[in-house]
Amino acid sequence: MAADPRFHPAAGPFQLSDLAKAAGAEMVGEGALPFRDVAPLELAGPDEVAFLDGRKHLDALRASRAGAVVLRSEFAGSLPAGCAGLISPAPHLAFARIAGLFHPPPPPVPGIHPTASVAADAILGEGCEIGAYAVIGPGAILGARCVLGPHVVIGPGCVFGDDCRIHAHASAVCCIAGDRVTLHHGARVGQEGYGFAPTPDGRFLTIPQLGRVRLEDEVEVGANSCVDRGAMGDTVLGAGTRLDNLVQIGHNVTTGRGCVIVAQVGISGSTKLGDYVTIAGQAGLTGHLTIGSRARVGAQAGVQGDIAAGQDVTGSPAMPVKDALRAALYLRRVGARKAHPAGMEEQKGPPAGRPEQTD
Amino acid sequence: MAADPRFHPAAGPFQLSDLAKAAGAEMVGEGALPFRDVAPLELAGPDEVAFLDGRKHLDALRASRAGAVVLRSEFAGSLPAGCAGLISPAPHLAFARIAGLFHPPPPPVPGIHPTASVAADAILGEGCEIGAYAVIGPGAILGARCVLGPHVVIGPGCVFGDDCRIHAHASAVCCIAGDRVTLHHGARVGQEGYGFAPTPDGRFLTIPQLGRVRLEDEVEVGANSCVDRGAMGDTVLGAGTRLDNLVQIGHNVTTGRGCVIVAQVGISGSTKLGDYVTIAGQAGLTGHLTIGSRARVGAQAGVQGDIAAGQDVTGSPAMPVKDALRAALYLRRVGARKAHPAGMEEQKGPPAGRPEQTD
Amino acid sequence: MAADPRFHPAAGPFQLSDLAKAAGAEMVGEGALPFRDVAPLELAGPDEVAFLDGRKHLDALRASRAGAVVLRSEFAGSLPAGCAGLISPAPHLAFARIAGLFHPPPPPVPGIHPTASVAADAILGEGCEIGAYAVIGPGAILGARCVLGPHVVIGPGCVFGDDCRIHAHASAVCCIAGDRVTLHHGARVGQEGYGFAPTPDGRFLTIPQLGRVRLEDEVEVGANSCVDRGAMGDTVLGAGTRLDNLVQIGHNVTTGRGCVIVAQVGISGSTKLGDYVTIAGQAGLTGHLTIGSRARVGAQAGVQGDIAAGQDVTGSPAMPVKDALRAALYLRRVGARKAHPAGMEEQKGPPAGRPEQTD
Repeated sequence: MAADPRFHPAAGPFQLSDLAKAAGAEMVGEGALPFRDVAPLELAGPDEVAFLDGRKHLDALRASRAGAVVLRSEFAGSLPAGCAGLISPAPHLAFARIAGLFHPPPPPVPGIHPTASVAADAILGEGCEIGAYAVIGPGAILGARCVLGPHVVIGPGCVFGDDCRIHAHASAVCCIAGDRVTLHHGARVGQEGYGFAPTPDGRFLTIPQLGRVRLEDEVEVGANSCVDRGAMGDTVLGAGTRLDNLVQIGHNVTTGRGCVIVAQVGISGSTKLGDYVTIAGQAGLTGHLTIGSRARVGAQAGVQGDIAAGQDVTGSPAMPVKDALRAALYLRRVGARKAHPAGMEEQKGPPAGRPEQTD
Repeated sequence: MAADPRFHPAAGPFQLSDLAKAAGAEMVGEGALPFRDVAPLELAGPDEVAFLDGRKHLDALRASRAGAVVLRSEFAGSLPAGCAGLISPAPHLAFARIAGLFHPPPPPVPGIHPTASVAADAILGEGCEIGAYAVIGPGAILGARCVLGPHVVIGPGCVFGDDCRIHAHASAVCCIAGDRVTLHHGARVGQEGYGFAPTPDGRFLTIPQLGRVRLEDEVEVGANSCVDRGAMGDTVLGAGTRLDNLVQIGHNVTTGRGCVIVAQVGISGSTKLGDYVTIAGQAGLTGHLTIGSRARVGAQAGVQGDIAAGQDVTGSPAMPVKDALRAALYLRRVGARKAHPAGMEEQKGPPAGRPEQTD
Repeated sequence: MAADPRFHPAAGPFQLSDLAKAAGAEMVGEGALPFRDVAPLELAGPDEVAFLDGRKHLDALRASRAGAVVLRSEFAGSLPAGCAGLISPAPHLAFARIAGLFHPPPPPVPGIHPTASVAADAILGEGCEIGAYAVIGPGAILGARCVLGPHVVIGPGCVFGDDCRIHAHASAVCCIAGDRVTLHHGARVGQEGYGFAPTPDGRFLTIPQLGRVRLEDEVEVGANSCVDRGAMGDTVLGAGTRLDNLVQIGHNVTTGRGCVIVAQVGISGSTKLGDYVTIAGQAGLTGHLTIGSRARVGAQAGVQGDIAAGQDVTGSPAMPVKDALRAALYLRRVGARKAHPAGMEEQKGPPAGRPEQTD
């Protein structure tokens, strides 16, 4: 079951040796057929390549009709007869490289759509593709081979490096970006952050937000995610950092390299992340915190204090993961009446409480 | 107090018998006046129709000046003199049908706005209305009577059935949709999901996302909600499933029919919902779970394991609702010093803790 | 370190007396230099103005090279030699006024972009600036000096007062707004809310949403935030209320004046807020609640019941803040094995549990 060619036409075909070379993998067995695409293990046919994502899929491997499978050496013995192996210590990465051989990112189609509105003094690098109704403001600068989808807005003075991809409906203002930066559909970068002071007559006065957003090389901002510019100084996403969808990054947040920020996370202003911090879905971090490199924050966690490098926390308020699991287990036991704490003498029937309302 | 005719012009007027027929309701009393619109019980006048949403509004019913009220038979005795009754066992549904009589969805105004950009080989069904600056890509196919608002983007090869409504600023790529599908303002469907593998030199390599999104008949995607395409294979929303606003659906999530997914919910990749699952606001589900049909997940729940059909869970981590209420009651009692667990010998004053910060 | 002039050109320069007058602050010392911009305390030079944000920054004050600092009188003694003071009891507000002197909101550039699509019967006040590809529908009315960014959609019949700013990609339908209202990038106002009734054949019938959104003077709606119109009657945001980004406001929510609703908050339908309610990030409120004036709701709180005026709550389910801190402390102690509740006899190793998954 190859990818739908309406959306994902495949390059190739390729020989097994081409795949092994792209993946940096060692071949086991022969692949006589040219290979035409990647496919999941359960569905792949003799001209398709799959991968084994861990031992729990071994049964699927043994039953697979794939022509070749990317896998760790320890599982090579489970390859079906006639199925070639591509041995790698990092099968997911190797498979990504092979998939990228069949489905490379489409190159830009250089040109400016006749409906795009590009300021006279904007500078576009060679080979840019500018989509329908895109708006590029005065003094903006795009590097080479940037691809802007329909309706993209690049504000005055913004700078993007080479090979950036800015998908339909995304907007960037007050933004300086490096190379190979990606803004997904509807991403919002550089808008005014949430800053105001109460006045004596009961109103709010906006505090001018005079900073910018800096996106280092290979940063990605997910669909409909928001990155506010700094109040003074910059909001910075370090090289390789990737935001999933519907994420909120407050003014003057900074991250190091390679941070992984999953969907619907919110990080309040001026919080600073080190390198390779992972924040799981829907977690929230208050402001002015310091999160050390390689810390990991669990899904839905509520972080209210600094986290040391390498520490794993979860829960709301957040605490070390082992502690949080212990506390959660205790609550589960209380709920299931397997623990009978003082002050909860046997309740008759379920406690009065407001059942969860969906609106 | 009728609906504002600038935004919601009313069809009609209609006789009580017309309303009864549309609603499948039984008439009690007469409605001499022609009826001009629906209105809330507290505000309706003699030419307006209201409905009774349960016994807690009986006082409002008795005081109402409405010309007719939709209600269950058990409350008919509380109708004021001169107020007709429209008896239905499902008053909300009956009222929806009556409101729909006064305010039917506006029919398409067939035609392509001169500013729209429609690919030469795109196929549009008869009677489509294509709004200003909409972009329809090569090979896309729309059924009959589809309405696209301003700035909509339909990517190459996408397919939509008949009578779809795609509101302003929504985007769909790599998407196959049935009939009567609705994408609300700013909805994002089919974009690349969150998939990448770490490389040895500390960067991330995107794993090509080679699937699609399938939206079955009558699916609705709320404003600014995001539905990522599959990594391999499809992300599927089953017939009638409705997403509220700001929802995140990860790659390869699938749902059965009629799932109700309230605002700001996040469902991680490859999780599978059965039919008629309800997920209340801001809940989060981790990946690769199986949620049985008619399960109900409470607001803000954190679901980390499978849920059996028909089960109700809430809390984070999620547990059966009765257990969660019991655990929450216990915590409330600890907080209020009505329970004095060991290890919490009388604290002087409030415990040290970080008061909640708003940034 | 002044603001980047590509994005934030500075007006002026100004004398110290100009700044003191704008800020309503008392001068201490002289500022001989004309001042050119604001800057952070740590970076400001002799021709820049900074402010002291509380005693924890006193070291930074003493080391600062700023030409003038806005601060409370009690800290004036810590001003470095040669650094002028601008004394104010509300330094943040005073600084906002000074920053606004250097960086006033850019005035509209009156005119309608040639690519904008403005209905023939739409009424635009004098001095409006209408951006590229903006769409203004039939019967819409804008007051004087409104600024609409690229791709804005104003639906038929909408009304905006004077001096509104509607940023790129925002949409408003069924909306009546006052003066000085701001919609940030991608904001969604007035779309159909989440209302439907189940039918006997297992489908959902939409309940026509026949209300509107009313935004009173000086309301702000953050980037990608969503405000649904009323089902019947209006959703209302009271004067001065500000929504941060990615907020969800359900149908028929109403707020009083000056409510502060931080990022990713969700408020379910028909809940009513008084004046000056503060709701911290990612909190959720169920429907049909009443939240009294000046109540404060903590980050990630789950509010399921009414809150009295002036009360502070947090946690999920929400409870008074002091109680929530006490309950959280207890759980932290259970987790850290400093409390040993009955029913949790010494567990060997960490409890079985599902480590947090990032998808």
